Amino acid sequence: MPRGSFITFEGGDGTGKSTQLALFLEYLQTHEIAHIFTREPGGTGIGERIRQILLDPACAEMEDMTEALLYAAARAQLAREIIRPAMDAGKLVVCDRWVDSSIVYQGLAKDLMHGRGGSEEAVRAVNAYATDGLIPDVTILLDLDPAEALGRARSADGRPDRIEAKGISYHRAVRESYLSLAEREARVRVVDAAGPPEAVHARVIDAVQQAVEITK
Amino acid sequence: MPRGSFITFEGGDGTGKSTQLALFLEYLQTHEIAHIFTREPGGTGIGERIRQILLDPACAEMEDMTEALLYAAARAQLAREIIRPAMDAGKLVVCDRWVDSSIVYQGLAKDLMHGRGGSEEAVRAVNAYATDGLIPDVTILLDLDPAEALGRARSADGRPDRIEAKGISYHRAVRESYLSLAEREARVRVVDAAGPPEAVHARVIDAVQQAVEITK
Repeated sequence: MPRGSFITFEGGDGTGKSTQLALFLEYLQTHEIAHIFTREPGGTGIGERIRQILLDPACAEMEDMTEALLYAAARAQLAREIIRPAMDAGKLVVCDRWVDSSIVYQGLAKDLMHGRGGSEEAVRAVNAYATDGLIPDVTILLDLDPAEALGRARSADGRPDRIEAKGISYHRAVRESYLSLAEREARVRVVDAAGPPEAVHARVIDAVQQAVEITK
Repeated sequence: MPRGSFITFEGGDGTGKSTQLALFLEYLQTHEIAHIFTREPGGTGIGERIRQILLDPACAEMEDMTEALLYAAARAQLAREIIRPAMDAGKLVVCDRWVDSSIVYQGLAKDLMHGRGGSEEAVRAVNAYATDGLIPDVTILLDLDPAEALGRARSADGRPDRIEAKGISYHRAVRESYLSLAEREARVRVVDAAGPPEAVHARVIDAVQQAVEITK
């Protein structure tokens, strides 16, 4: 049995990642392509417990490295308990975020915002051990100008605070970090996330099909 | 203000680590030596939350790497929130376990038991990032033959299961791993943990004083 493919979705707030994931999963179902979908942090019982710590406002004093290690711990469990076995069984695995999120959010974007460097290397090294080198076959990076993403988030849920709280400069740092990753790694495919969801979806399908074969 | 020292205690089940820590802290108090005491995993609010996951029987399916990363996350928080600031303020810091515990329990001893190798390197690398290279000035390793430790644990709390559950061969692997660490790192001082607690305590004080100056 051939090894299954591993596809991840990445993108900043308001880029429509959840919508595009839903449309992609619908596509897989319509075309009867066997797959499993998971998300991180979480996706396992232990991962969900770790997720609770990460999201708990009482844990706001968390250090960057603590945060990176907690995401890595959840990922270590998800890789070994769910993703590897599914791939070994020939299944396509779709995951909402993977190591790239840590490289951007705990590494590059924080360094950009704080005018420092060095976090990327630490995050990469820790995650190489965490995932035992499990790298996606293709990563769909949904890319949108933060000003537009901000407007989209505002109109979508009427809660402008969610994305505005961190400031536009933070979201620009996140976008820049993701794009610098894409420049360096061919598996990361930048998909223009502007326009109607169905148009973006067509671009996602194109980008995936250029990279991996997804058939029944 | 001179940088404070960092002293850690290590040892397998039944070696009397808790008793010796209590006697050592009593000694520091009697001699009016300013210090702080902490333990891991835990020692911070976030660390205690991580400790709950590590000790939860519902999380028994935890992978070795997940476990190592969770211990490292708790350690990252403890190092930055508590230990570094205390040392910078010139305080002596005493900690119940540190990276050596991970090297032994998630690394060397597991490799010995399962006849494999390679975990030590991963655990060391992850923890170097986690602790930002914070290494104890001296580590007291309480060493006792597992057969004797087993008898001591049985008579101490009447719960032979606690130490017997994992089997004597596991405890021998833990001891062997600790001793191999001590052979390689001069800061790890092997203290014979046989005999009455007060005699062991005198050896602990000797070993500490040979390594660091502890005065008012």
